[in-house]
Amino acid sequence: MPQAPETLDGWYSLHLFYAVDWTTFRLLSEEDRNELIDELRSFLAKHESARENNAGDHAFYNITGQKADILLWVLRPEMKDLNTVENEFNKLKITDYLIPTYSYVSVIELGNYLHTNPDEDPYENPHIKPRLYPELPHAEYICFYPMDKRRNETYNWYMLPMEKRSELMYAHGKIGRSYAGKIKQFITGSIGFDDHEWGVTLFADDPLQFKKIVYDMRFDETTARYGDFGSFFVGHIVEKEDLQDFLSL
Amino acid sequence: MPQAPETLDGWYSLHLFYAVDWTTFRLLSEEDRNELIDELRSFLAKHESARENNAGDHAFYNITGQKADILLWVLRPEMKDLNTVENEFNKLKITDYLIPTYSYVSVIELGNYLHTNPDEDPYENPHIKPRLYPELPHAEYICFYPMDKRRNETYNWYMLPMEKRSELMYAHGKIGRSYAGKIKQFITGSIGFDDHEWGVTLFADDPLQFKKIVYDMRFDETTARYGDFGSFFVGHIVEKEDLQDFLSL
Amino acid sequence: MPQAPETLDGWYSLHLFYAVDWTTFRLLSEEDRNELIDELRSFLAKHESARENNAGDHAFYNITGQKADILLWVLRPEMKDLNTVENEFNKLKITDYLIPTYSYVSVIELGNYLHTNPDEDPYENPHIKPRLYPELPHAEYICFYPMDKRRNETYNWYMLPMEKRSELMYAHGKIGRSYAGKIKQFITGSIGFDDHEWGVTLFADDPLQFKKIVYDMRFDETTARYGDFGSFFVGHIVEKEDLQDFLSL
Amino acid sequence: MPQAPETLDGWYSLHLFYAVDWTTFRLLSEEDRNELIDELRSFLAKHESARENNAGDHAFYNITGQKADILLWVLRPEMKDLNTVENEFNKLKITDYLIPTYSYVSVIELGNYLHTNPDEDPYENPHIKPRLYPELPHAEYICFYPMDKRRNETYNWYMLPMEKRSELMYAHGKIGRSYAGKIKQFITGSIGFDDHEWGVTLFADDPLQFKKIVYDMRFDETTARYGDFGSFFVGHIVEKEDLQDFLSL
Amino acid sequence: MPQAPETLDGWYSLHLFYAVDWTTFRLLSEEDRNELIDELRSFLAKHESARENNAGDHAFYNITGQKADILLWVLRPEMKDLNTVENEFNKLKITDYLIPTYSYVSVIELGNYLHTNPDEDPYENPHIKPRLYPELPHAEYICFYPMDKRRNETYNWYMLPMEKRSELMYAHGKIGRSYAGKIKQFITGSIGFDDHEWGVTLFADDPLQFKKIVYDMRFDETTARYGDFGSFFVGHIVEKEDLQDFLSL
Repeated sequence: MPQAPETLDGWYSLHLFYAVDWTTFRLLSEEDRNELIDELRSFLAKHESARENNAGDHAFYNITGQKADILLWVLRPEMKDLNTVENEFNKLKITDYLIPTYSYVSVIELGNYLHTNPDEDPYENPHIKPRLYPELPHAEYICFYPMDKRRNETYNWYMLPMEKRSELMYAHGKIGRSYAGKIKQFITGSIGFDDHEWGVTLFADDPLQFKKIVYDMRFDETTARYGDFGSFFVGHIVEKEDLQDFLSL
Repeated sequence: MPQAPETLDGWYSLHLFYAVDWTTFRLLSEEDRNELIDELRSFLAKHESARENNAGDHAFYNITGQKADILLWVLRPEMKDLNTVENEFNKLKITDYLIPTYSYVSVIELGNYLHTNPDEDPYENPHIKPRLYPELPHAEYICFYPMDKRRNETYNWYMLPMEKRSELMYAHGKIGRSYAGKIKQFITGSIGFDDHEWGVTLFADDPLQFKKIVYDMRFDETTARYGDFGSFFVGHIVEKEDLQDFLSL
Repeated sequence: MPQAPETLDGWYSLHLFYAVDWTTFRLLSEEDRNELIDELRSFLAKHESARENNAGDHAFYNITGQKADILLWVLRPEMKDLNTVENEFNKLKITDYLIPTYSYVSVIELGNYLHTNPDEDPYENPHIKPRLYPELPHAEYICFYPMDKRRNETYNWYMLPMEKRSELMYAHGKIGRSYAGKIKQFITGSIGFDDHEWGVTLFADDPLQFKKIVYDMRFDETTARYGDFGSFFVGHIVEKEDLQDFLSL
Repeated sequence: MPQAPETLDGWYSLHLFYAVDWTTFRLLSEEDRNELIDELRSFLAKHESARENNAGDHAFYNITGQKADILLWVLRPEMKDLNTVENEFNKLKITDYLIPTYSYVSVIELGNYLHTNPDEDPYENPHIKPRLYPELPHAEYICFYPMDKRRNETYNWYMLPMEKRSELMYAHGKIGRSYAGKIKQFITGSIGFDDHEWGVTLFADDPLQFKKIVYDMRFDETTARYGDFGSFFVGHIVEKEDLQDFLSL
Repeated sequence: MPQAPETLDGWYSLHLFYAVDWTTFRLLSEEDRNELIDELRSFLAKHESARENNAGDHAFYNITGQKADILLWVLRPEMKDLNTVENEFNKLKITDYLIPTYSYVSVIELGNYLHTNPDEDPYENPHIKPRLYPELPHAEYICFYPMDKRRNETYNWYMLPMEKRSELMYAHGKIGRSYAGKIKQFITGSIGFDDHEWGVTLFADDPLQFKKIVYDMRFDETTARYGDFGSFFVGHIVEKEDLQDFLSL
């Protein structure tokens, strides 16, 4: 029987996508709208303490196109912390004017095929730890998509022997590494948590790099033969100080 | 012709998923909201008698992400009892602020490939009975997903001879048993009742175990070649005494 | 070229599924709600004359789970009679509180692979006639699902020679007949009328029989290799005298 | 490279499906409803001039089941004429009570595999012209479905040589011709216009003929191996003088 | 490992589709409606400066059928400019009466298999530059559809050697070039940005050319074996001076 690789799991992850219902938001007075924007800004500011305490992080982007207007990505040490943040967010007054459009539950996952020193605790390895409990970059652009490995009749990832998978993942990882400095990549595992097997979240200042890396990888056997994809979301950063402008009418 | 395995069938099962419509719920006064929360708490308290009388059980969780906010899982001796509970729930005033998002109808099912002593009534076997009519754990986390066995052109579960299926299920079960103590697993059969063939409901105090078991099983031939999955739902327990907090605004 | 089997076609059939919108229904006074319930009860009572005049029949069930609350199944001699009943139903005041969720248009179909005496009119055969123009049982439970025969690259039902199909259907029918006395089964043809090729409607007093027959058949080559399924709906009978109770708040 | 067949293209075609929102329509006074019905009747009457001037035609049917209540099928010489009619229809007051449920854009298409005399203009051929610019029958029943030719790994219609396709289409057409007198069939091409490759619109006084022809064709290799289908819609005619009755409450 | 071809990438592209909610729009007075139409016209007029400054372009069409009423296609130098235009559009008062129905994020992409002179900067090549930063034609009709290259078990585009892909794309391009003068074609790449791999936007004065080119290409091996398609949208131009007429009631 092929063997499941060991994984290292870090913070739990929740991607929340919302559309703005401009039609009802416009019904409010400017003063009322500003109050809601202030409340949202305070919520985001308050949760920056997680980052400061190394107990999680979050990112807030404006999605391009009609799949969503907002992406709030939240990382926390426990899955129940995600429920807490989500429920707190849903109780903000501005959510009366937000329509949930998609979400994704996962956990930062590392190095399925990573060879670690058996004598040390990999969770304390200084190269690994910051990748399991990362500080998110404030890059201009974000890209998120969920994915699966195929289990087709001829090409079935889960029936491949471990060595073959390691070999394929090594070549796959090499493409990823060639984008170092241009793209920051986070892999989150969602088997047992959500409808696909992994989520991929990319950050870059030049969004063309998202297209380049995903296109390059598509010709890589790991993806070409075994990769399946859900929806792709791309967005531009909204810093706290841009919130007012983004939401003003 | 391949033969259908014998099954043992216990309580009927209904998974009900609802999203909270916070926007309209917020329109109520705090007093009115509390009244609705009280009514819901009484409903849950009243139905605890089923558990006490060994005539069913229920579980209530807060789903992570936007697929739902609430999962109410109900077990009862007769299918029509599920209709009764569902209709009673739908008549609670708080359901004016709940949006149905998904449901699943099935029946606790055991040991398709279990070898029982032909001289005894398996329904009275003291190892089997509590698994057919279970008392649900109050674990921190729940995981639910429906699944099917594939009937592809090359790999068709239902065309395999009984011995091959028994062999595969035995290996599959071994993975399950290796999680004893970490995960409590309930299989419910839904062939003829709902859109997939089985539902799987897992309970654990550490949600990472859900990911581990589902990932391990994915490399097992039964799943790798023959398993197909619907949506995955994961959630955190809401005890009766947490209801007020969960629903307060 | 493989040949299409002869079919005998009886009454036209319309399955109508509706969810109850309890939120708006609750806005009515009890008196107003009762008036609507009375109107619905009169509609059902009036249409019992079709049964009495052997000009059709209908069934009314409470669907378990969130796919629907109500199933109204109507049989009539002409397809336009279905339009008439549907439009009449949609004009009942209570439909302001019902949300259409699914429907299925078909016609009672018999004996694709049935061998009839060439010297007699099968539509007058006393064994066949009551199956084409049936009186529906008032069983406790109903099960409905639509299905197709696959046209895959290797296994293509419609490319099989007639004898092979007859042979497969004969084995398939044997399973069905082994449930005589436990299940009443109605096959309706919907090729050219709706999105699947057939509808299957089952009645039983013990709903576990639905699971047993569908599971048994899944191992039969006709289904294992060639069957594809739509959604499954299961429900409990609502007799006219139970309407008040079912719909009261 | 396999070659695309020549096609003859006639009038542009738009199928518009709407559900009636009886709940809001009922809120109007009978007088107001009648005004809207009159406006709709005038719209339909006005557009009969297209038929009289041989500049298009339309059909109006009541769809059976919940996919829609109304089908308005419009034929016009230019695609922009379809936009004009659709926009004009959407500006009728009654559309405030109609919910769009499906539509299909295509063009009457003839004789992909038809052999025409190279010396004449087929658009002026007296057998062809009335099929490209048809007068629609006022048959009791209508049936509409969109379809595709498969491009599977083994059976790929678009990789077959022209002769093989001609041969298959000839056999396919023979089934169609055997229904002459019972069914009037219109093929519309939608490659580049809508989500499937063709639309099929059938008219008959006996709706059982729809089932018979589609079932017969399913055993024909062209369909069995290469046909894929979208949704099927079936309906009963609503003549202008039946509008009042159809829409009265 | 097969190699990804080099691409040249021009302006970022956003297709926005909206349905008009005539029911609520009709609730406004004619004067109020005209004010909203004026605001929309000013928005479109203002953004014509992008075209004049060679910093982007846009197109505005009336989609045929119910998938949408309006298509606004926007091209801009940076992806964040698309967010700016989209947010600005969503803040127009008329969008209270528009329902988003579909959108597509991509970037003008050229010559995957184009052979450029290694000594020059292709972005400055006078034949290439205007195709990367195009001025859109004001043709009568538009056609848009997204597409993918298949990764099936037997026919997998991404596992083909570069030479085979070049050869196939060359033959494919030849069909495209045979429509020069009849159709203006724009390819936009969306790998990593949206749910399909490419978008195709065609302009023509005769919409039958859309059907002809897409049908011709379907018999070309590149498409027949490797092409997969999303939804097709077709529409007629709405010039600024036609806006009033298009939206008046």
